[in-house]
Amino acid sequence: MNFERPNIQAMRGYSSGEQPDSADVIKMNTNENPYPPGPAVAQALAGLRVESLRRYPQPTALPLRKALGALHGVSVDNLLVTNGGDELLRLLLATFVETHECIATAAPSYSLYEVLAAAHGCRMRDYPLNADWSLPADLAARMNADGIKLCFIVNPHAPSGTLTNVAQLEALARDFRGVLVIDEAYVDFVEPELNYSTLPLLNRFDNVLILRTFSKGYSLAGLRMAYGIGPQTLIDPMQYKTKDSYNTDFIAQTLAQAAISDQNYAADTWHKVREQRSSLRSALAALQLVAPPSQSNFLLATVPAPWNAYALYAGLKAAGILVRYFKLPGLDDKLRITVGTAEENQRLLRELSRLLQGA
Amino acid sequence: MNFERPNIQAMRGYSSGEQPDSADVIKMNTNENPYPPGPAVAQALAGLRVESLRRYPQPTALPLRKALGALHGVSVDNLLVTNGGDELLRLLLATFVETHECIATAAPSYSLYEVLAAAHGCRMRDYPLNADWSLPADLAARMNADGIKLCFIVNPHAPSGTLTNVAQLEALARDFRGVLVIDEAYVDFVEPELNYSTLPLLNRFDNVLILRTFSKGYSLAGLRMAYGIGPQTLIDPMQYKTKDSYNTDFIAQTLAQAAISDQNYAADTWHKVREQRSSLRSALAALQLVAPPSQSNFLLATVPAPWNAYALYAGLKAAGILVRYFKLPGLDDKLRITVGTAEENQRLLRELSRLLQGA
Repeated sequence: MNFERPNIQAMRGYSSGEQPDSADVIKMNTNENPYPPGPAVAQALAGLRVESLRRYPQPTALPLRKALGALHGVSVDNLLVTNGGDELLRLLLATFVETHECIATAAPSYSLYEVLAAAHGCRMRDYPLNADWSLPADLAARMNADGIKLCFIVNPHAPSGTLTNVAQLEALARDFRGVLVIDEAYVDFVEPELNYSTLPLLNRFDNVLILRTFSKGYSLAGLRMAYGIGPQTLIDPMQYKTKDSYNTDFIAQTLAQAAISDQNYAADTWHKVREQRSSLRSALAALQLVAPPSQSNFLLATVPAPWNAYALYAGLKAAGILVRYFKLPGLDDKLRITVGTAEENQRLLRELSRLLQGA
Repeated sequence: MNFERPNIQAMRGYSSGEQPDSADVIKMNTNENPYPPGPAVAQALAGLRVESLRRYPQPTALPLRKALGALHGVSVDNLLVTNGGDELLRLLLATFVETHECIATAAPSYSLYEVLAAAHGCRMRDYPLNADWSLPADLAARMNADGIKLCFIVNPHAPSGTLTNVAQLEALARDFRGVLVIDEAYVDFVEPELNYSTLPLLNRFDNVLILRTFSKGYSLAGLRMAYGIGPQTLIDPMQYKTKDSYNTDFIAQTLAQAAISDQNYAADTWHKVREQRSSLRSALAALQLVAPPSQSNFLLATVPAPWNAYALYAGLKAAGILVRYFKLPGLDDKLRITVGTAEENQRLLRELSRLLQGA
């Protein structure tokens, strides 16, 4: 007998990037930081005692929230720590969206949003981005007209890497009547000179929630730690009602706190990623693979005819290099390439040159 | 503005047992194993390299599922690893229960079930247990008549510690038309001579799902790891559609696998808990605090008049010993006491004697 809910029966699960077991593969497909976590994390890991695992962890990760509060200049009451960004995104639907309601994103975007909507059983509407990946000027008005309850905007944008400026997000927060979730998974890689920060929006609007993660900027994808920053009216129901009682574990809380304690180390990896991003983008353009300017740790390179994006993806995979290919309208002539170390990027460029010449 | 769904606005969150920061408090309130994780876990912890955290973890914990499959003699396809038992319980509602449907339990039971139902937005019905904590004989018939979609049975039972035998569960699985979830969080503490095992039910019924956890038997409450065993028709939709993409982290997967690799160590802690359970139950009875026979790692002791259960709870807390008091009908004259080490149990008994004499 099939006991599944009809919406679950009908849906397809999330298809994540390949995660090979082999350490020899050069992974440029799921946007991990190419540099390892720093010495503070290593020291915290070495200092863990097995006895500390016997008891339940702090249910709301309070010590970590205190450290995050100090880092961002916000109260612990404005912070929710989650088991990866996925959990926070799911909690937003579970807490704020009725199954007869509709959520939205500016498309294309992170494909998980659609999967979460299907699993929740609500509808999701895509509003196409402009050709230059910028937000449509009338987005808020259209969403209001359509009765959208919650909108996910990933910024810097995935999969293009482009950045929407704070003024545009501010206008969207002001005009949109639903909950505006700004998914800043890649924010650590934004040029510091741009002074990009959406935190001031939290003082002005009660409908904005910002997502941050340890997976990318802090090189801790394996640890599953992220957090939301928002008004208590959005944070509290998730913190005290809808999240699992003990949603993050003792070790993850401890290591995440160690990671943010050494901002210099983390910022140094971000700086190196930006340098590599710049040189990789130029080198790709020299191969006629043009990518829009990225403020993230990946580049979305267009593969011009007569070359074929899927064939390049497959050729790179055969050579031990994974990049991301999306078989989707508007994306199927492109490759999303995570910025690697200097050595990894050189190896990628060599293989690309070889494949492009052979094609 | 309040953006919460009406069911979330109306609900109250789960109230977990107190988790004091101080290591000096004797914690007999949340059923942790009193003995620490073993040397295999310590060794795995010491062997972790920080570099391994940079990449995403295995999304379905496949290496751990292989080890669990070998341990239980089931296929990896019958296993779902979750971020604590809470996640599995929640996924069962999210995947199999429509919001207009109703779930059930035999009451009293684990209070989280009701919170999960409220958060999901479905109804929940309690069917009272018999006075001796056994299941009502007509439970399946009544649930079928009421159209119950899913039923949670915790066995050994919480908060009484009593065990329902397999024959009764088999009859329930056969007769009940919905999904039967057997929450075996405490199963490791059952006397081996009873040969209790519900695993054979999985070969006979397509509506049974068994929950197991590392929190109690393997002394890893701080790690948040549990798993479900069931038919693929129940496991697959949770594994590939409704769970978060990377729901358990690399370290938790690694340490959980280490924990089950040393069954002798774990079984030795279970044996010690059973010895302590037996002597603690006798000693409590000698103080006129009678508890039903427990196959779990806790005892539910009735506090006879004129003594008062809440006053005893408060007196113990003042003395640095936490036990669990439930302000609920049928439970408010009782204390649920986690079996501790010999020293902890002696300290508890001394304080109880003192309080009972002073009362």
